[in-house]
Amino acid sequence: MPEFLHLLAPQLALDRLLNHLDYQLQEELVETKQALGRVTAAPILAPHALPSFDRSTVDGYAVCAADTYGASGSLPAYLKVTGEVPMGAAPGFQVKKVTCALIHTGGMLPEGSDAVVMLEHTQPVHAQEIEILRAVAVGENVLQVGEDVEAGQEVIPKGAVLRPVEIGGLSALGITQVKVKRKPRVAILSTGDEILPIEATIEPGKVRDVNSYTLSALVEKAGGEAVPYGIILDQVDILAKNAAQALQDCDLVVITAGSSASERDLTAQVIDGLGKPGVLVHGVNVRPGKPTILAACALPGQPTKAVIGLPGNPVSAFVIAGLFVLPVIRALLGIPPVAYKPSVLARLATNLPSDAGREDWIPVRLSTGPSGWEAEPIFGKSNLIFTLVRADGLMCIPPDATGINIGEWVEVYLLE
Amino acid sequence: MPEFLHLLAPQLALDRLLNHLDYQLQEELVETKQALGRVTAAPILAPHALPSFDRSTVDGYAVCAADTYGASGSLPAYLKVTGEVPMGAAPGFQVKKVTCALIHTGGMLPEGSDAVVMLEHTQPVHAQEIEILRAVAVGENVLQVGEDVEAGQEVIPKGAVLRPVEIGGLSALGITQVKVKRKPRVAILSTGDEILPIEATIEPGKVRDVNSYTLSALVEKAGGEAVPYGIILDQVDILAKNAAQALQDCDLVVITAGSSASERDLTAQVIDGLGKPGVLVHGVNVRPGKPTILAACALPGQPTKAVIGLPGNPVSAFVIAGLFVLPVIRALLGIPPVAYKPSVLARLATNLPSDAGREDWIPVRLSTGPSGWEAEPIFGKSNLIFTLVRADGLMCIPPDATGINIGEWVEVYLLE
Repeated sequence: MPEFLHLLAPQLALDRLLNHLDYQLQEELVETKQALGRVTAAPILAPHALPSFDRSTVDGYAVCAADTYGASGSLPAYLKVTGEVPMGAAPGFQVKKVTCALIHTGGMLPEGSDAVVMLEHTQPVHAQEIEILRAVAVGENVLQVGEDVEAGQEVIPKGAVLRPVEIGGLSALGITQVKVKRKPRVAILSTGDEILPIEATIEPGKVRDVNSYTLSALVEKAGGEAVPYGIILDQVDILAKNAAQALQDCDLVVITAGSSASERDLTAQVIDGLGKPGVLVHGVNVRPGKPTILAACALPGQPTKAVIGLPGNPVSAFVIAGLFVLPVIRALLGIPPVAYKPSVLARLATNLPSDAGREDWIPVRLSTGPSGWEAEPIFGKSNLIFTLVRADGLMCIPPDATGINIGEWVEVYLLE
Repeated sequence: MPEFLHLLAPQLALDRLLNHLDYQLQEELVETKQALGRVTAAPILAPHALPSFDRSTVDGYAVCAADTYGASGSLPAYLKVTGEVPMGAAPGFQVKKVTCALIHTGGMLPEGSDAVVMLEHTQPVHAQEIEILRAVAVGENVLQVGEDVEAGQEVIPKGAVLRPVEIGGLSALGITQVKVKRKPRVAILSTGDEILPIEATIEPGKVRDVNSYTLSALVEKAGGEAVPYGIILDQVDILAKNAAQALQDCDLVVITAGSSASERDLTAQVIDGLGKPGVLVHGVNVRPGKPTILAACALPGQPTKAVIGLPGNPVSAFVIAGLFVLPVIRALLGIPPVAYKPSVLARLATNLPSDAGREDWIPVRLSTGPSGWEAEPIFGKSNLIFTLVRADGLMCIPPDATGINIGEWVEVYLLE
């Protein structure tokens, strides 16, 4: 299995991987107030209409609209005030022709009334009578039953990430529990004889395990559960045993390969031996991150799961996790492919060369320039861990470009 | 205290509030792996340099650069191979003049060597000797001690939100615990005789408590801890007692007022009585959200804390929470004012009128159009709860505009 014979474009490589997965996460019931960030496992239907009664949208008087027709400042209509609508209760009385009732924003329209005249378009004559200074149409200043949501209507589709506004919408409908996809379990294995646990004192020739922690945090933010398998020695049998266990226990396996070619070959060999169909992509046409491995492996009697081999270099691992690990997590959760990414439009602060024929991802820092945001590429060898810490976002040079000129507008995808 | 005499612009109103706060949250120590989204309470300094030894960035041969000067394909330099650098350990040998050592990416440069020749620029002569086909300069293909981070260097400033990349950076430095600001406790009080708990069956004239849940989720996402005080009846003494307790216990108090003018007046009156200086702003020049109340109140012997009265209408409450509650949370955490907001640039899909002299926030839905993203405003009365659920983001019409024309580019701030 020679490395890099065919370098696939990232999107094609991802499609090839996703096409091999046939895996549905189970659903579970969670309290709505705990459901922030979770993903719906089924469409949510409104158990009743919203609003559930005709509500006033202003402070004023509930009227029969026909009684106000033709009313104006010079020729007001006169209506008898027969009541006041209490907040939070049914009015308990009717509004008859040529009468009206005081009503507050959010109050329930009394039977017989079909519109509300705003307080500022009325004038008291005496305690029991008002002048109407402007006509209202039927339904004016009224939120009608079902105007927000009809009973039985689908209000949230399947595969939706629950944001604060959805939590509020579910609360409005009295939906206190919601069926969501179980969080996908993402196994994270770090390989490399040079890798130390983060608690260890630094030793000559060794580096601490950066990728497990960055990846765990990324997985958590993306709605998955990171399952750390620790640092695995670079020996075929040890790595194979741990990877098989991870594939058995988890929904997605991510292995950060060591940075040397021999370590990467070892990882590819082990992944390919985990199950059929095995390695699908070895080498992606992107920088950083070329030595990426994408595989789909099925243990006997188990569904086909994704196994991803990330480059050991922290910047590459981060970029590749964004391009492959997070989309697989979204696919497992049933979230439709990302339509848009949060970005900031900025002018490039310097000329940026790039080799044509390859997608280039570059960390940038944002600052304010004379005409809006400026994006300053952070140069430096791609194994510098703190390159990313100094960055506000990443920009992409598409494969058909040989660079971008100073002053051009670029989209900066924000690091989160 | 008459409502709306002076309508301040949102930014001026926020500045007035922030200027009155003199409140620092305590710090606490958390495990780095638990610190995602937390905010640093002090600058973080590197305990040692990164890398901590000279590392090769390629697979190749560690050499004395001077031995390669003038080498080319037609006139190679010949070097004796005297060893192989093990991964994850000090080499344990020196590279002397006219010798070299096999080294892998990430390996530690042996003493005496000062550059690495890439494998593809060498050719074996026999097991103990290679040809060098290209000269290298001193330091070429080497990551030098401290090239990423110097010992003692500030690597993360105070007031930084810890993203996955910072978690990775801290891990690289062996920093397993980090001093962060305690999460601000945000009291949430819902007022209104018409408000039902979300578990309750719907009743005529009543609506369920949307705002407590939307706000709790927003607060949680912003790095605060939501402390729900439940639904408070619209009576001065009951609201005053609960608000004073909340001010005592929490770092920020948010009261969603009922939607009627009388309920809002009651809320303003209670807030003003909580402590000096009291209500600073009553009425903001923004739609939706005009009836916003901003106050700074100090209980005896306590620091001055922010108290914010939100409009009862769910869409207004959401917009105003974004404009005032979240910036106060960020200020309490010591996060510098937001430099940029994640957005998507889109063409407006329809003409959008707006009254000049007021900032207008409009929920929009994104879709793909012929020239990129299109933003479709979601019209509808602003008390429709599901308007926001249908929205991908919010756009803002600035106060000096009387609207925006179809086809113009607008920034859509994504709902999260």
